[in-house]
Amino acid sequence: MTTDEKLAKLRRLMKEKNLTAYYVNTADPHQSEYIAEHYQIRSWLTGFTGSAGYALVTQEEALLWVDGRYFIQAEKEISGTEFKMLKIGNSAYPTIEQWLTRYLSRNDVLAMNGELISESFYLKLEKTLKPYGILIKTDYQLVEEIWQNRPAKPDAFLFTHELQYTGKTAAEKVNLIRKKMMQDQAEAALYAGLDDICWLFNIRGGDIANNPVVISYALITMDQAILYVDKNKVVKQTDEHLSENNITIKEYDLVFSDVENLHVSTLVLNQEKINHNLFNKIPESIRIINKQDYPYLIKACLNDVELKNQRNSYIKDSVALTRFIYYIKQNLDSGKLNELNVAQTLHDLRKEQDLFLDESFPTIAAYGANGAMMHYRATPENYSKIEPEGFLLIDSGGHYLDGTTDITRTISCGILTEEHKTDYTLTLKAHINLARAIFLSGATGYYLDVLARQPLWQYHMDYKSGTGHGVGYLLGVHEGPQRFNMHYADVPLQEGMVITNEPGVYKEGKYGIRLENDYVIAKDKKVDADQFMKLDCLSFVPFDRDAIDISLLEKYELDWLNCYQQEVYQKVSPFLNQQEKAWLKEETAAM
Amino acid sequence: MTTDEKLAKLRRLMKEKNLTAYYVNTADPHQSEYIAEHYQIRSWLTGFTGSAGYALVTQEEALLWVDGRYFIQAEKEISGTEFKMLKIGNSAYPTIEQWLTRYLSRNDVLAMNGELISESFYLKLEKTLKPYGILIKTDYQLVEEIWQNRPAKPDAFLFTHELQYTGKTAAEKVNLIRKKMMQDQAEAALYAGLDDICWLFNIRGGDIANNPVVISYALITMDQAILYVDKNKVVKQTDEHLSENNITIKEYDLVFSDVENLHVSTLVLNQEKINHNLFNKIPESIRIINKQDYPYLIKACLNDVELKNQRNSYIKDSVALTRFIYYIKQNLDSGKLNELNVAQTLHDLRKEQDLFLDESFPTIAAYGANGAMMHYRATPENYSKIEPEGFLLIDSGGHYLDGTTDITRTISCGILTEEHKTDYTLTLKAHINLARAIFLSGATGYYLDVLARQPLWQYHMDYKSGTGHGVGYLLGVHEGPQRFNMHYADVPLQEGMVITNEPGVYKEGKYGIRLENDYVIAKDKKVDADQFMKLDCLSFVPFDRDAIDISLLEKYELDWLNCYQQEVYQKVSPFLNQQEKAWLKEETAAM
Repeated sequence: MTTDEKLAKLRRLMKEKNLTAYYVNTADPHQSEYIAEHYQIRSWLTGFTGSAGYALVTQEEALLWVDGRYFIQAEKEISGTEFKMLKIGNSAYPTIEQWLTRYLSRNDVLAMNGELISESFYLKLEKTLKPYGILIKTDYQLVEEIWQNRPAKPDAFLFTHELQYTGKTAAEKVNLIRKKMMQDQAEAALYAGLDDICWLFNIRGGDIANNPVVISYALITMDQAILYVDKNKVVKQTDEHLSENNITIKEYDLVFSDVENLHVSTLVLNQEKINHNLFNKIPESIRIINKQDYPYLIKACLNDVELKNQRNSYIKDSVALTRFIYYIKQNLDSGKLNELNVAQTLHDLRKEQDLFLDESFPTIAAYGANGAMMHYRATPENYSKIEPEGFLLIDSGGHYLDGTTDITRTISCGILTEEHKTDYTLTLKAHINLARAIFLSGATGYYLDVLARQPLWQYHMDYKSGTGHGVGYLLGVHEGPQRFNMHYADVPLQEGMVITNEPGVYKEGKYGIRLENDYVIAKDKKVDADQFMKLDCLSFVPFDRDAIDISLLEKYELDWLNCYQQEVYQKVSPFLNQQEKAWLKEETAAM
Repeated sequence: MTTDEKLAKLRRLMKEKNLTAYYVNTADPHQSEYIAEHYQIRSWLTGFTGSAGYALVTQEEALLWVDGRYFIQAEKEISGTEFKMLKIGNSAYPTIEQWLTRYLSRNDVLAMNGELISESFYLKLEKTLKPYGILIKTDYQLVEEIWQNRPAKPDAFLFTHELQYTGKTAAEKVNLIRKKMMQDQAEAALYAGLDDICWLFNIRGGDIANNPVVISYALITMDQAILYVDKNKVVKQTDEHLSENNITIKEYDLVFSDVENLHVSTLVLNQEKINHNLFNKIPESIRIINKQDYPYLIKACLNDVELKNQRNSYIKDSVALTRFIYYIKQNLDSGKLNELNVAQTLHDLRKEQDLFLDESFPTIAAYGANGAMMHYRATPENYSKIEPEGFLLIDSGGHYLDGTTDITRTISCGILTEEHKTDYTLTLKAHINLARAIFLSGATGYYLDVLARQPLWQYHMDYKSGTGHGVGYLLGVHEGPQRFNMHYADVPLQEGMVITNEPGVYKEGKYGIRLENDYVIAKDKKVDADQFMKLDCLSFVPFDRDAIDISLLEKYELDWLNCYQQEVYQKVSPFLNQQEKAWLKEETAAM
């Protein structure tokens, strides 16, 4: 079916049902950052395959809003169809709210699948449209109806995340949640966030690519803990694990009727996570406590067992990365390296490591000018060969049973210009200045962000991304409230939080440089009442000495670098063969 | 009258009127930061002379809340009286809200003078007490009634701040306000902030020590601009100035009846600034737009004429300070220097400068261990002699017709230990790292604050104050929304804002170090859409080379220092005599 045939079918259905406009977003019922094929409804309808964006269809118009990452890709993918692209964040284009309030009339109906929007999104939309008399209906699945050969719901088996990795049993975690509920005088808690549920019940799965989660809901009361999940996915071992921890398993869809028949007076949930259709089932008599989910905040700070494991997974990942860099350096002149096969090589090297499960996101291998595109993905149709010059940017990560990693290295492939070296060194300065920060307990990631940007700002350069994000523990590679960012968020950095530090320089048509290590927030000295904190490094992969112009480094920066490189050698070399070891010794020698 | 006699009289009045508790704060009707003698009601009643704090009196209790700056002083000053001190910010003591809700009963009456509290304070208090059925009455002036020999209201003459200093006529400024009013659909604007009114009408006065303001209100409508002020204070020249700018003068107290009879449908004001009694007069039919006063935000960014003048006033002030440091250095061995007479010398040197009016705040001259008390004031009863060793901290500023300054230098008086030098140099590093910041337009002072703290945090030291505050223009030395601070405020630093940079090291019983320059926010390069900003220095007084350990400075810090010292010499030396000049040449020579 062509896009325009799909549109014709959709419009016929809309006409039958008297719907003025139909909204299609990129989401699953759990507001996941990444979604399974089964939920790629917007992608199927519009032909645009990017990871974010939303469409609106009326009898006259077919509109697609996309953000800056995808302007070029979306334009290409929807060309020749009736869809028009609207650029998010560009004031020359109306926002969807502006478009709706301008072109829809009183009593017009905007329809959508309410299972795919959060309650908070619904409330915001309702507030915007109500003054204009525009009605919202949320019980339609029109695109789903016309989607032939729609991929099935994911059916990966669940597995238990064992106590040796989690440090706490599921029963202990549920009790912790119950304590929080009592403090808030909540009699029940409802969860839809897949990472929250997996953490809480010590389960993992494979329902979303690169995200070892299980499509599920959870309901906790003072005497019950229920996991709503496709029972076919629960193998005997997991069944036993859940039952040992007093967790009841029910079929996924039963959450709707259970919530409808819930007999409690107060229910705590996060309206950003619970979808509108599920929220709608909650009896009116129940008082809602709307707040950030407890699991989301608790799991952001790793416990001692998790942290010990996480450290170990980073060492293994660092070994794979270091061996990868050695491989690249050895094969630069072979003429055989390209963006696709080096990503495969990196995968093979990670796979050799103990407890490896999967990449934590699709590897970005971007050579030369491709590196300037922050979200570049090489494809079999479109990839670059690696020449013996310039930079290869590799942003990748792994899921291991004992942790999740995320790391970026920019590798010198041979001849570098002075500009290459200057920008690499400035990026390194940015990284170092944040990495060595010591700060008072209570400081936010917003407060510290400038430490990374300042060395680049001194040269009037900026990177158009955050400086760092939280990392989950065998869960999402983007997770938790912690981040280094220029946008304020009132989230103090707390002991046990894992966070990335990834400043960069991106020059369109030339190259991209990003240097990313991950750190755990740790206690430093306490002086009187002042608890100082620091960033404790998890990643140990050498920075590329060929790309560093040491004349640009201050003494303390050079000290940091030499000390770091030394630590890389100490931690990684025991796992290398003789040639690799010899190379690493030179690569990490004091500069 | 002793404090306990005052309390007895107050309690008798309270009993007559059936008032359970009486609240006395430190304020004037304009919520000024500093207040005239006439309004020092809390000070008169309690005997505690600090600049902040509030008292609560019942038949059984006499309570005084004070903040950390004043614990020692307040304890001393109220000892032997019935007053008890409660420490603000110390959880061992109840807050006043906690105390009131715990010890007062339903239908008890808390009374106060509503002219001395802001409307927003009243609303907050009412919200807290209402659930407990505690009543608030705001039409009492009981302490004022029993205060015999109360100082009269200030009666300083007004003077005109001439166009050559202001760059805009009062009529132009009023028109600017009217434009803003139209944007907000406000038909009238009411002002109580003395700095706002003085700026708006290009007037100054002398009603509050070190604050060249005029006790007044202002009301702006689309066709009238009214200044409410004691007419006896308006001399002919000012009367003409106001009339030329179409500003009507009315007696101070008439604002109450004018507001009561105001015929507009919308009124814009700031509930943080308008006192409760005045707010109460506003007819209920008027819709209130509660927001930050326009003059407060507009005047925070100096216009070109103001900035040219402000720069000039800082050069004059820097000359006075530099000559002062020379004087100190020459007289260290005389045995005659003390905290009081050096402050007088500094005053005399400032007075020699063109257009000098007054200190912008009482000079802090703190020798040795006194410097560790951030708000130390030497008094004729209690001051230190300056010995030829250790540090003298001088924090001072001047009001000139063409600007207001604020600067701190810490002067080596002779023998210094390594600890002295290390801490001085770390403070200098902190200063430099903020001073040289380059940042994207839109960054807040909170976002940049860490640049100053980081060099000290690296040594596990912190200063318990903000890093910087806004400075007015022949108005308050603390002014404007801009600041460098660890507490978040959503105030981007904008071109033309003047702000201090004053990190420090304070070691109890040993010494205090503070190094303060003032800067104006200025545009730096623009690269594509990125407008970079910088801090442009206003103050040019040498840092003390005897106190600097250059081994602790990074190369870029030493470069900054040498460049700064060179600029000091260039800008200040033309105004010095031969001996001073020769000394400054050596003092500022490259290190």
